[in-house]
Amino acid sequence: MLKTVIVGASGYTGAELTKMVFLHPELALSGLYVSENSADAHKAISELHGTLKGLVDLPLQPLNDIAAVADEADVVLLATAHEVSHDIAPLFLAAGCKVFDLSGAFRVQSDSFYTDYYGFTHQHGDWLEKAVYGLAEWNSDAIATADLVAVPGCYPTASQLALKPLLDAGLVDTRQWPVINAVSGVSGAGRKASMTNSFCEVGLHAYGVFTHRHQPEISTHLGCEVIFTPHLGNFKRGILATITVKLADGVSETQVTEALENAYQNQPLVRPLGAGQSAKLQSVQNTGFCDIGWSVKGQHLILTSAIDNLLKGAASQAMQCINIRFGFSPMTAIV
Amino acid sequence: MLKTVIVGASGYTGAELTKMVFLHPELALSGLYVSENSADAHKAISELHGTLKGLVDLPLQPLNDIAAVADEADVVLLATAHEVSHDIAPLFLAAGCKVFDLSGAFRVQSDSFYTDYYGFTHQHGDWLEKAVYGLAEWNSDAIATADLVAVPGCYPTASQLALKPLLDAGLVDTRQWPVINAVSGVSGAGRKASMTNSFCEVGLHAYGVFTHRHQPEISTHLGCEVIFTPHLGNFKRGILATITVKLADGVSETQVTEALENAYQNQPLVRPLGAGQSAKLQSVQNTGFCDIGWSVKGQHLILTSAIDNLLKGAASQAMQCINIRFGFSPMTAIV
Amino acid sequence: MLKTVIVGASGYTGAELTKMVFLHPELALSGLYVSENSADAHKAISELHGTLKGLVDLPLQPLNDIAAVADEADVVLLATAHEVSHDIAPLFLAAGCKVFDLSGAFRVQSDSFYTDYYGFTHQHGDWLEKAVYGLAEWNSDAIATADLVAVPGCYPTASQLALKPLLDAGLVDTRQWPVINAVSGVSGAGRKASMTNSFCEVGLHAYGVFTHRHQPEISTHLGCEVIFTPHLGNFKRGILATITVKLADGVSETQVTEALENAYQNQPLVRPLGAGQSAKLQSVQNTGFCDIGWSVKGQHLILTSAIDNLLKGAASQAMQCINIRFGFSPMTAIV
Amino acid sequence: MLKTVIVGASGYTGAELTKMVFLHPELALSGLYVSENSADAHKAISELHGTLKGLVDLPLQPLNDIAAVADEADVVLLATAHEVSHDIAPLFLAAGCKVFDLSGAFRVQSDSFYTDYYGFTHQHGDWLEKAVYGLAEWNSDAIATADLVAVPGCYPTASQLALKPLLDAGLVDTRQWPVINAVSGVSGAGRKASMTNSFCEVGLHAYGVFTHRHQPEISTHLGCEVIFTPHLGNFKRGILATITVKLADGVSETQVTEALENAYQNQPLVRPLGAGQSAKLQSVQNTGFCDIGWSVKGQHLILTSAIDNLLKGAASQAMQCINIRFGFSPMTAIV
Repeated sequence: MLKTVIVGASGYTGAELTKMVFLHPELALSGLYVSENSADAHKAISELHGTLKGLVDLPLQPLNDIAAVADEADVVLLATAHEVSHDIAPLFLAAGCKVFDLSGAFRVQSDSFYTDYYGFTHQHGDWLEKAVYGLAEWNSDAIATADLVAVPGCYPTASQLALKPLLDAGLVDTRQWPVINAVSGVSGAGRKASMTNSFCEVGLHAYGVFTHRHQPEISTHLGCEVIFTPHLGNFKRGILATITVKLADGVSETQVTEALENAYQNQPLVRPLGAGQSAKLQSVQNTGFCDIGWSVKGQHLILTSAIDNLLKGAASQAMQCINIRFGFSPMTAIV
Repeated sequence: MLKTVIVGASGYTGAELTKMVFLHPELALSGLYVSENSADAHKAISELHGTLKGLVDLPLQPLNDIAAVADEADVVLLATAHEVSHDIAPLFLAAGCKVFDLSGAFRVQSDSFYTDYYGFTHQHGDWLEKAVYGLAEWNSDAIATADLVAVPGCYPTASQLALKPLLDAGLVDTRQWPVINAVSGVSGAGRKASMTNSFCEVGLHAYGVFTHRHQPEISTHLGCEVIFTPHLGNFKRGILATITVKLADGVSETQVTEALENAYQNQPLVRPLGAGQSAKLQSVQNTGFCDIGWSVKGQHLILTSAIDNLLKGAASQAMQCINIRFGFSPMTAIV
Repeated sequence: MLKTVIVGASGYTGAELTKMVFLHPELALSGLYVSENSADAHKAISELHGTLKGLVDLPLQPLNDIAAVADEADVVLLATAHEVSHDIAPLFLAAGCKVFDLSGAFRVQSDSFYTDYYGFTHQHGDWLEKAVYGLAEWNSDAIATADLVAVPGCYPTASQLALKPLLDAGLVDTRQWPVINAVSGVSGAGRKASMTNSFCEVGLHAYGVFTHRHQPEISTHLGCEVIFTPHLGNFKRGILATITVKLADGVSETQVTEALENAYQNQPLVRPLGAGQSAKLQSVQNTGFCDIGWSVKGQHLILTSAIDNLLKGAASQAMQCINIRFGFSPMTAIV
Repeated sequence: MLKTVIVGASGYTGAELTKMVFLHPELALSGLYVSENSADAHKAISELHGTLKGLVDLPLQPLNDIAAVADEADVVLLATAHEVSHDIAPLFLAAGCKVFDLSGAFRVQSDSFYTDYYGFTHQHGDWLEKAVYGLAEWNSDAIATADLVAVPGCYPTASQLALKPLLDAGLVDTRQWPVINAVSGVSGAGRKASMTNSFCEVGLHAYGVFTHRHQPEISTHLGCEVIFTPHLGNFKRGILATITVKLADGVSETQVTEALENAYQNQPLVRPLGAGQSAKLQSVQNTGFCDIGWSVKGQHLILTSAIDNLLKGAASQAMQCINIRFGFSPMTAIV
């Protein structure tokens, strides 16, 4: 059993990770941590997340001695703020832990990305270079030997899983940038009190237009410019991305279908739905699946891609990476 | 035209009042105010409440000179915190304004009520005594000459409108306390960031069990003990109260029906739905109506009463009181 | 007072029309009709739409003698199925009524449009030619003298109000088709029992990809190809359209701003929100407004446009057309 | 492995059962059935319930040869209509299958109950007498040897789990009937198109006032009259019951606490939350748990009890019964 620690366990993603580690037959949940000055320190996690009561009632411990925690851990899951991950991942790594970071701190191998989009200067270029991007269906070889896995963002997961097979197959006319419109549930904003997330303020609106940090994450990993417009919708969890693409000359719907079905034929957690089908949020909520639908008319392709933002967009994708890294069966603790 | 000022205009009730005053042909909206140190001071109200844009774009002014404001106002609507209303209502009254207070500060003529349920000692016993409880359908004579109207709470409005006709007619066996279960939309908690109101935390749960301040407000004004259990539901606005009552010996459904229909036959904003009918939240949301349904079996009666908490439970009931006080047609600016 | 009749009054749009006609000081609601064999025939409209109780309790009469109804009507509002409108509008017109049709039956002056997208052959080419497209802010001169106004669809209203000022100003590079992603509330599907609209089946998904009949309606009236992808969202009412546009060479955000603000400076029901702003569904729900936001980066423009699908997308736009046609003040019965 | 068949697999409960049988290490899913003339016959279950895609894509077979199906089955789960269960359960039982019926057909050992509340005359008095009521935490000895388990209704499960410990301990003054107010998600009405369940029609309202068939189910099994008022709320799944009880003379909160905590100390799927706590719908949705909170003031007790109606109120309680019947670990396939 691998001793597993979750840092930042108080949030929605932290709670999902906690449940999955609890259910995983090869992982032992050895500690839940929050930042030293968190108001949640010393509370049982099930006090914050009632769904865990009776399953995991461990306390959220203040992380005030990283060395001691690292000493006792084989696997470290970081569901922490970007800058916190940036600061502490190297400490856990130095102690020999395998680190799975769900923040953005090690996702894009570019210094300027962090100053431009995250507002801090990256100090750990070495780890940034060594970090493996945890898009599980696409990077399994690198994940299998990684010390540090940077689990992708929620929007980037939904977007890339749909677009990557087509780009790799050369089916896209990339001179016309793919247009990604995506709607996320409110849990994507994290577990905190804010006016934006206040129940009565939530309806449906675009935000971060042209400025969201997931746009360069998507573009970099796809190697293709995109226009990405995120929206906040009136539901708790899930992301639906609708992607409009100009196809390369002469590309047929059949080619699109083949590219998507071939890419995922051995990937149980991505479900290509078939030509003429649309991905539905309600089919993936509370699951680790990504559903992809597509339709072609003339030179245009519309892709729909749906995931649960907290699972395939965060916690269950981290668990996929753990399963790959340690050779466990791919759906363990996920289905 | 009566010069009308709204204090505490930044909240959900304030926004509803603002729209109604704007629409009212006999009221002139002469100023919107927030507390001096509010983060919203100097913003346009339509910046906070986008629905008002183009209709009312007035700024939210800091209330730092009550005397000056009072001097220019005929009518003052207080959508302020209880203690703020308690402090400032007397100042406006002293200047000759008619005050319609939507807080709890003048609703119950008992000093101990304020120490027990509101956590402050009431300093204005004289005004507390003179204040008229603004349950519009029941107190119109007193409202018509009042200087200070204490507009009832949302739960008390829904509860009393259903129970009062039956109690007045002597149809209830009050030895067995009526059981009021009510579910409110999240707007009842006000416009503020809090974990409880955070979108992902809202489901359905009881709160304030045996301790909510609306229980004594209801009991006092009905002259009858009640058991009141409020709940928070996953919708923005509205209250549905389901009330279980033991009838006095020999009381028939017909008597219940007559009591309710007689009470409201000349009251356009209360709609008795008939025996065997249930009030539906969706029929009263965004309206100034109260719907009441009832069913009798043996010695038991179940009443359902639905209102929009921000309107009949607050803003539109205040407007009803204004219409009564100044002799305007009863539904002006409401329907 | 103009005698006004509503046909197809049982649906959600019919109920909104009913309320607006009731509130309109120059219109007299002289009859509500449903099809002869409707299960709702002879019921009070307020039995179906509880919100109307006490305001309008008129029965839904079966429309079995159009000539008699037409004889007594000045204004006819058709909230009927497309084929029904197609069949009966000419009969009311022949009797001298002014007809405001909320269906698609007279929106596009092309025969093949009806065979291709509506599944019937249009039999009234003369009226199709004379019909005025009721996009109120853009066609007021023609509406002012029209006998038959074809009120636009909900998606087309949201889309065109955002795009038309920019196309008219020549700011768009139309070789790259604008991409319109829109999410509608469930009321857009009408008042009927179906699995798709069943509460538990609604989440968020695209439908009618590349095949929705509103795509040619938009393209035809804009004179520009578009890619339109509608979605069904988990809310009752409202539409948010997010539109991605390639700008013509050298076009600046300032030019976009000027085009939008100039277009609507005298139009009280369209609210340009300013550059960098996003339209929010929650600001327009239950209102007759259209909110438009926009952002430019490089050669790309993202527009967001929000309306209430039942109001600005149907009933209140019909009322705007009536107000224009008969010279009433533009916001009468709407605000 | 026990060969397991699900009849009525197309509904929401059927889909939950399907997933649990799929996950259960000791059960083999050997067939999914619907009624012979179902429109869903021959479709893959995952076509109806997209969440199952890739996990269970078995077809929904028409049940036209019960003998053949029974021959191949060890365990039969009936998620069928009451009358269908009534008719077919005896056939499966005669073939030696163990039957777990989720309908109401065998829950109450009284003939008149079926004529009064279900509209049919019960023909299988022998099986009605032998059927074991599957309230898992309370009837495990009988369930362990049962041939036919009648899994309780959703409201009765939430209600009884809260009340039973107190009644058994003699803490309730039953002369004053406990008042049960409960709100259910829309999935409780089943998977079908109806106006009542149509997205735009759902708000919050009471239904079946004084007439719901779950009232006698609760009363009979508790041995205590109750007043039960069900409501339909605007959420997909879950039930919250709020129960107001008059305590017997001199009963303290401590006694209530002890009764509840003792009753469930060895029952992992019922979570007594402690005095002063309220059960929250959001903590039990998508889980097999029942959460119970309670508060006492004077002689009154308020209990709150929350379950997922499709799980603890149906499918997972059936699975608990299977686990008990065949000696599997209690949470298998549930947590």
